[in-house]
Amino acid sequence: MTDFHGVFPYLVSPIDDAGRIKTDVLGQLANDLIAAGVHGLTPLGSTGEFAYLSSAQRADVVRATIEAASGRVPVVAGVAATATADVVAQARSYQKLGANGILAILESYFPLAEPQVEAYFRAIADAVDVPVVLYTNPQFQRTDFSLDVIARLSEHPRIRYIKDASTNTGRLLSIINRCARLKVFSASAHIPACVMLIGGVGWMAGPACVIPRQSVRLYELGRAGRWAEAMDLQRGLWRINEIFARFNLAACIKAALEIQGYDVGAPVPPQRPLGETERAVVAAALADVAAIAAA
Amino acid sequence: MTDFHGVFPYLVSPIDDAGRIKTDVLGQLANDLIAAGVHGLTPLGSTGEFAYLSSAQRADVVRATIEAASGRVPVVAGVAATATADVVAQARSYQKLGANGILAILESYFPLAEPQVEAYFRAIADAVDVPVVLYTNPQFQRTDFSLDVIARLSEHPRIRYIKDASTNTGRLLSIINRCARLKVFSASAHIPACVMLIGGVGWMAGPACVIPRQSVRLYELGRAGRWAEAMDLQRGLWRINEIFARFNLAACIKAALEIQGYDVGAPVPPQRPLGETERAVVAAALADVAAIAAA
Amino acid sequence: MTDFHGVFPYLVSPIDDAGRIKTDVLGQLANDLIAAGVHGLTPLGSTGEFAYLSSAQRADVVRATIEAASGRVPVVAGVAATATADVVAQARSYQKLGANGILAILESYFPLAEPQVEAYFRAIADAVDVPVVLYTNPQFQRTDFSLDVIARLSEHPRIRYIKDASTNTGRLLSIINRCARLKVFSASAHIPACVMLIGGVGWMAGPACVIPRQSVRLYELGRAGRWAEAMDLQRGLWRINEIFARFNLAACIKAALEIQGYDVGAPVPPQRPLGETERAVVAAALADVAAIAAA
Amino acid sequence: MTDFHGVFPYLVSPIDDAGRIKTDVLGQLANDLIAAGVHGLTPLGSTGEFAYLSSAQRADVVRATIEAASGRVPVVAGVAATATADVVAQARSYQKLGANGILAILESYFPLAEPQVEAYFRAIADAVDVPVVLYTNPQFQRTDFSLDVIARLSEHPRIRYIKDASTNTGRLLSIINRCARLKVFSASAHIPACVMLIGGVGWMAGPACVIPRQSVRLYELGRAGRWAEAMDLQRGLWRINEIFARFNLAACIKAALEIQGYDVGAPVPPQRPLGETERAVVAAALADVAAIAAA
Repeated sequence: MTDFHGVFPYLVSPIDDAGRIKTDVLGQLANDLIAAGVHGLTPLGSTGEFAYLSSAQRADVVRATIEAASGRVPVVAGVAATATADVVAQARSYQKLGANGILAILESYFPLAEPQVEAYFRAIADAVDVPVVLYTNPQFQRTDFSLDVIARLSEHPRIRYIKDASTNTGRLLSIINRCARLKVFSASAHIPACVMLIGGVGWMAGPACVIPRQSVRLYELGRAGRWAEAMDLQRGLWRINEIFARFNLAACIKAALEIQGYDVGAPVPPQRPLGETERAVVAAALADVAAIAAA
Repeated sequence: MTDFHGVFPYLVSPIDDAGRIKTDVLGQLANDLIAAGVHGLTPLGSTGEFAYLSSAQRADVVRATIEAASGRVPVVAGVAATATADVVAQARSYQKLGANGILAILESYFPLAEPQVEAYFRAIADAVDVPVVLYTNPQFQRTDFSLDVIARLSEHPRIRYIKDASTNTGRLLSIINRCARLKVFSASAHIPACVMLIGGVGWMAGPACVIPRQSVRLYELGRAGRWAEAMDLQRGLWRINEIFARFNLAACIKAALEIQGYDVGAPVPPQRPLGETERAVVAAALADVAAIAAA
Repeated sequence: MTDFHGVFPYLVSPIDDAGRIKTDVLGQLANDLIAAGVHGLTPLGSTGEFAYLSSAQRADVVRATIEAASGRVPVVAGVAATATADVVAQARSYQKLGANGILAILESYFPLAEPQVEAYFRAIADAVDVPVVLYTNPQFQRTDFSLDVIARLSEHPRIRYIKDASTNTGRLLSIINRCARLKVFSASAHIPACVMLIGGVGWMAGPACVIPRQSVRLYELGRAGRWAEAMDLQRGLWRINEIFARFNLAACIKAALEIQGYDVGAPVPPQRPLGETERAVVAAALADVAAIAAA
Repeated sequence: MTDFHGVFPYLVSPIDDAGRIKTDVLGQLANDLIAAGVHGLTPLGSTGEFAYLSSAQRADVVRATIEAASGRVPVVAGVAATATADVVAQARSYQKLGANGILAILESYFPLAEPQVEAYFRAIADAVDVPVVLYTNPQFQRTDFSLDVIARLSEHPRIRYIKDASTNTGRLLSIINRCARLKVFSASAHIPACVMLIGGVGWMAGPACVIPRQSVRLYELGRAGRWAEAMDLQRGLWRINEIFARFNLAACIKAALEIQGYDVGAPVPPQRPLGETERAVVAAALADVAAIAAA
């Protein structure tokens, strides 16, 4: 259960106007993704709007995901806070709920120096018994951290993975070359086929929610070293990642899932749902990709 | 009570290792600041570490401040959230606790377009009956907003003040020229004497916690149009602002207050308290400024 | 001649389609500005499009300015290059042409460490006998430099002024407090009245080309400590600075001068002249400011 | 001669203290690179310090490279200027000297809107009869340009290649998917093996100056679709790219070439040559890579 690899969709957090998590919609989505062959589930990533949910709402999302997975695939739950005590409490509570791994996300208000960043991640890893995935996102975090910090953290027995959401694929190769213990997951801003070529073990990403079968196929081609076929598929799928980089991530995935028949609702205000034109762009891209899948 | 002007110190949030707000220390500080002549109190600004406190801790800070002020000066409480529903709940609850005004701070994770920013602030102002102070901070917020949005918001009956934490003093003059209804407060990154010269009504800032008497004197000189004397004083006080721009804001003000005998404790981890050398820099600056005050 | 203070308009560089400097137009403009009371002239600032002119074109601009001034006001010529040898050659040649001071502008392609920045400015100051004005512009330069470098440079016998084009007025007060030998000029991004209040000696700026009389009046009011009147005037003039921050600086000043009857031509391509709408905005602002002046 | 593909080293510009281009050293380097199997030569890229050289020095570099190549491999010469007329003159003059292609680099001082960027590149392509390579470098250029501009430019009969120096490999896939006519070259900030996997035709980069044989081998493995072997080699070579990202690019390549026995001299001041420690890092990396090559 703890050798994480393959396609881990970042789940959206379906929520109604009263702020209740729609656990049935989330459960159905999780179930369908597992049926499509994904290798794990990641609630409370950026796509999962962790930054917009209360403590109770977050726990509901994690609980519903774990129940839906019922041990078929590992669930790696996202934790994030500005305060160490808060993030540690989240990690402990999600482990207690049955999470198989923790995705450790840094939040900051005042900029942090590197020793503080290191202490934050170390506190999370010290607090749990399950594997920890470091999450780096220079775009949304106010503080980035260097390869030196990543290398030191990679010596912690629980810190075994990293998911990098920069667009800098070369940085991933530097991590792979330097941190032998750390396995690398791609994000939607990298080309998954490239990350697999350089030694990555899969990807954690929002788009995999809406193209799970195609994602799994791409992973399998990469795993088998069938690079020419992988790239043929990748070229067609890339359009989906382009769209998700252009629009608000959560709004975009939620719109795509609504188009696919999941009643996931709107993103949490003041975020706004996609407008009509944007929705049409998403629908067209989904139609194209469905055609690819059928080919 | 609702014509805000003058010196509003941003209060720190004294907190013990168990996460309890030290309401006695906060009360003593508030009391001493009022005795020193400040015109209002602002709990839960950046200096007040709002971004690091739980909902319950924030309410404790606001309650203790209001009790200590007991109507002698207005209390303008900070509210901030990524989700509109959360920030509205904070604003309502602080008004119920007796806050005389609301300092409305934008938080965001995904970047927001301007209509969403406007909706966020409008929702806060719609939810309360007390005056609202807009807070703009391009350094810590992931989203800034334009003069057009500020101008539209300034027509809301409750939105009557703005506190700008950029370093761009010219922007304040543009706001003053364009938004007749909006009164402008300076932040520690502007030169208070300059902001008063161009028409500002005072400042909301962390440094005023540790140099309240000098701040009030500076305000009075500006108010009286005694600009040469104001600048003489300002020149000496500026060193305090320089230091607060250099170090972590909360750590710095907390260290200065500890030096002055207030047992406010350390900033919330993973923030770290000032080191020995930094503490010495703060102590030296305080000594210099005390000499100025005595002169 | 070498105690620089007051209003130094940044001159545009009038140029025809064949790339010839229109020395007659430049001479007329310089002459009119002197008649309006300006205290000095600054060819080859940002507004003067130094970055778009060849070595020969630059020399023509400096020569024509010096001839037009004919000793009535000091001419401080801008020098800028990525290579030290190039900038030193410019400085020497402009001194030889009769420049009364050198405005030293940093250009860089690869980022420079501070010792290299310091060496660049020191090489300029070592190469001439006239006063040197440091020019800092965090917006257009790829490399900024710290107060420590400014303080060390301020000990050079020829480095006697600094002109700061950031929007951070507080930084100017820090420079004034720390570098006793260095006199500070404002740029169009600061509020000139504020810079004079804190101890500045004037401003070097593009807008002064088109509102010279009003600029001189503002300077005199500040110099006399008549701050209330200065601010009354400043409030009206600020609109000009706002417009120049919004549009391409050279295109904007050239358009304004064309409106005022100077045949200065278009900015050097690929820069484009203002469009019709933008031109109307500039014309309206000029009309308003003319009304102020007449009041 | 005009189907550019493979490894195009960015040549350094060897220069003595008096500012004379060392054409013999440059010729020897060009000759050795051709003997090592490189597919083309690129004088006056970033590594070639185009931004620090006079017009005459640039022409000397291009002339010496063309003479050394004597038709054995294509020479693609870099042109760059803030003014359109200047860059057009460079392009025409290098074509006259015998350049087989033009690498079109954007320089800007004031930010440019996209129509101006497009006009700049179009003017270059209109001025010559040889193929043009667009060069995008968000790190050093003050202005980036969108996929829309790239797509429009790709319809120009002479604009047939693009070399992207961002670190965002996904952007290259977007260009390849959208602009069928445009062939993509990698830069040192991308992983060359990945760029070839997604459809790139080679790379233009400084590091290829010092590891030409290994670069050519990597290219051949990619060309043959032997991806596992390509990645084995790539992993070892990546260290060289990491170092070049860490130090000043020109200083670093010049130091590496000096270690390899080429008397290329120091970078143009105020740039500084590598220090002893940095030189040792480069020497160690070169020794490791030489071992790889021998294996």
